[in-house]
Amino acid sequence: MSSAAPRYAEDYRVGDVFDLGSIVVTKEEIVEFSQKWDPQPFHVNELSAERSAFGGIIASGWHVTLLMMRMMNDSGFISPETSLGSPGHDGLKWLKPVRPGERLSGTAKISEVRISKSKPELGFVTHIATLRNEASEEVYILKSTSIVKSRAAKPR
Amino acid sequence: MSSAAPRYAEDYRVGDVFDLGSIVVTKEEIVEFSQKWDPQPFHVNELSAERSAFGGIIASGWHVTLLMMRMMNDSGFISPETSLGSPGHDGLKWLKPVRPGERLSGTAKISEVRISKSKPELGFVTHIATLRNEASEEVYILKSTSIVKSRAAKPR
Repeated sequence: MSSAAPRYAEDYRVGDVFDLGSIVVTKEEIVEFSQKWDPQPFHVNELSAERSAFGGIIASGWHVTLLMMRMMNDSGFISPETSLGSPGHDGLKWLKPVRPGERLSGTAKISEVRISKSKPELGFVTHIATLRNEASEEVYILKSTSIVKSRAAKPR
Repeated sequence: MSSAAPRYAEDYRVGDVFDLGSIVVTKEEIVEFSQKWDPQPFHVNELSAERSAFGGIIASGWHVTLLMMRMMNDSGFISPETSLGSPGHDGLKWLKPVRPGERLSGTAKISEVRISKSKPELGFVTHIATLRNEASEEVYILKSTSIVKSRAAKPR
């Protein structure tokens, strides 16, 4: 968990780019995650994966999504004091397979910030989050809106 | 894993509705999942959750997503012999919080099936998957396209 000061909706500004840090995923983690949640052969079975179009084990796209969520929490991009979750996501793209041992680096760029008119203690922060591999290729993009407390909700 | 016959792209027909079965999520599972992936206070801390807008612990939306993935695999909607993953998702909506002990029931309705012109051994199957609670309220919707082997890829 980050010990940074809480970020209210107004603290996210259009055009700001947040560094989400980086993470490496191992084959054991990929297989364990997929056995539990998404046991498709090319995620859990080495031989099937080698014979598949992917040529080897790849991470479940949902595992990649959760690695990003973890990075958003650990980097302080999501502030535990102010975050109120999300109503959903407009776009989620798995652009390239993620393979064991790859290091993924993340950023989140703010594209829109709006304070609610009817509930001025709430804001809507839209961001485009991207994970890149070591060759700087985009492997994952998530466009998302979060509900975040505004400064009007700040304890005095 | 399902022991049903493999489903090729042509076996999904526009308008078909697949029963994904049902699942119950416990408070322990909600907290354990969120501690690992999405440790926002209203997912992991009972007191913080009670004081939050949610009034108690709710499941991470990503946990709900993965419960659905598990149901899609277990029900045979995703066929291990023919599934080739997904390029991403257009729309993902968390409509209502999911609370400990709730039973969720899922369906997936096929909205489009297309066989690739350039690679006739592949099909694109678009579906709208929905989870409902015991009051039959929609709690989660995912609109998604899967890449599925067509009958042209069938072993002879």
